[in-house]
Amino acid sequence: MSQKSFDEWSCTVGRSLTVVGERWMLLIIREALLGTTRFVEFQTSLGIAPDMLSSRLATLVDYAVMIKRAYQEPGQRARPEYHLTPAGRELRVVIAALQQWGDRHLPRPQGPTMTHRAHCTDRPVHVAFIDDLGYEVAADDVATISTCPAELCPRQDSNLRHRL
Amino acid sequence: MSQKSFDEWSCTVGRSLTVVGERWMLLIIREALLGTTRFVEFQTSLGIAPDMLSSRLATLVDYAVMIKRAYQEPGQRARPEYHLTPAGRELRVVIAALQQWGDRHLPRPQGPTMTHRAHCTDRPVHVAFIDDLGYEVAADDVATISTCPAELCPRQDSNLRHRL
Repeated sequence: MSQKSFDEWSCTVGRSLTVVGERWMLLIIREALLGTTRFVEFQTSLGIAPDMLSSRLATLVDYAVMIKRAYQEPGQRARPEYHLTPAGRELRVVIAALQQWGDRHLPRPQGPTMTHRAHCTDRPVHVAFIDDLGYEVAADDVATISTCPAELCPRQDSNLRHRL
Repeated sequence: MSQKSFDEWSCTVGRSLTVVGERWMLLIIREALLGTTRFVEFQTSLGIAPDMLSSRLATLVDYAVMIKRAYQEPGQRARPEYHLTPAGRELRVVIAALQQWGDRHLPRPQGPTMTHRAHCTDRPVHVAFIDDLGYEVAADDVATISTCPAELCPRQDSNLRHRL
């Protein structure tokens, strides 16, 4: 069975992963959320090879997660800066969810490396499920339901289940 | 500059990504959240090569995200099933956050492929930031703050910022 091209993924989890389904992508976005904009800053913070960083930033710009702008220090040549777009900033919830999971299940002895707070109130925030009435719902009380028709999702093929 | 080994990441986002920072890992977990447990089912749903699936499942078992149990159909040899552990089920919030982002920024013409509902109330749920009083906070009103000392996070090196 051949490996699917990720661009063919009909599922939106799979589609999201075409953009951020690689460690460097999410680490670059984490850095950007912390205020990093310049190539050399990303490179130094992440310890990533320049050609890899360059290709990852280009992909993030292609998918409109980041935009590239020029800046110029006096007496130097123009260089690019990379800024998160509104779509890119919305990945904050994905990054925070990954961090929460890591803090809980792969904790550092020294404690978390990042916290999240509301700008307006300065209160600490966490990521969770919320229902349409605004109540927090425990992750173990949440069901994931496929709404995908059989022709798009082989997992929905009941004949397959019977064969297994 | 050499590429960091991900096991060396001090940040918990990086640490989480040692386990789930690869597309197949999260897609396997998505399938498991939808009820898939058997090797052939994962293979068929995802279109993943058997050797890749085997290595990914082994990693998920190593990190206690899944456990492996034997099952046996009458007249057949015993085969392994893979079940999410409580830590694995907690990744539901990460998967749901990725899906939400994809539904918004890379939407399918046919609409979402999955929904999430509360078991108890059957109400739809979404992933969001919540403060310690239980109020939802918009992602754009959330600040990500590094709590990492300079020796662990080069981005905290103020001398570096001045040099750039």
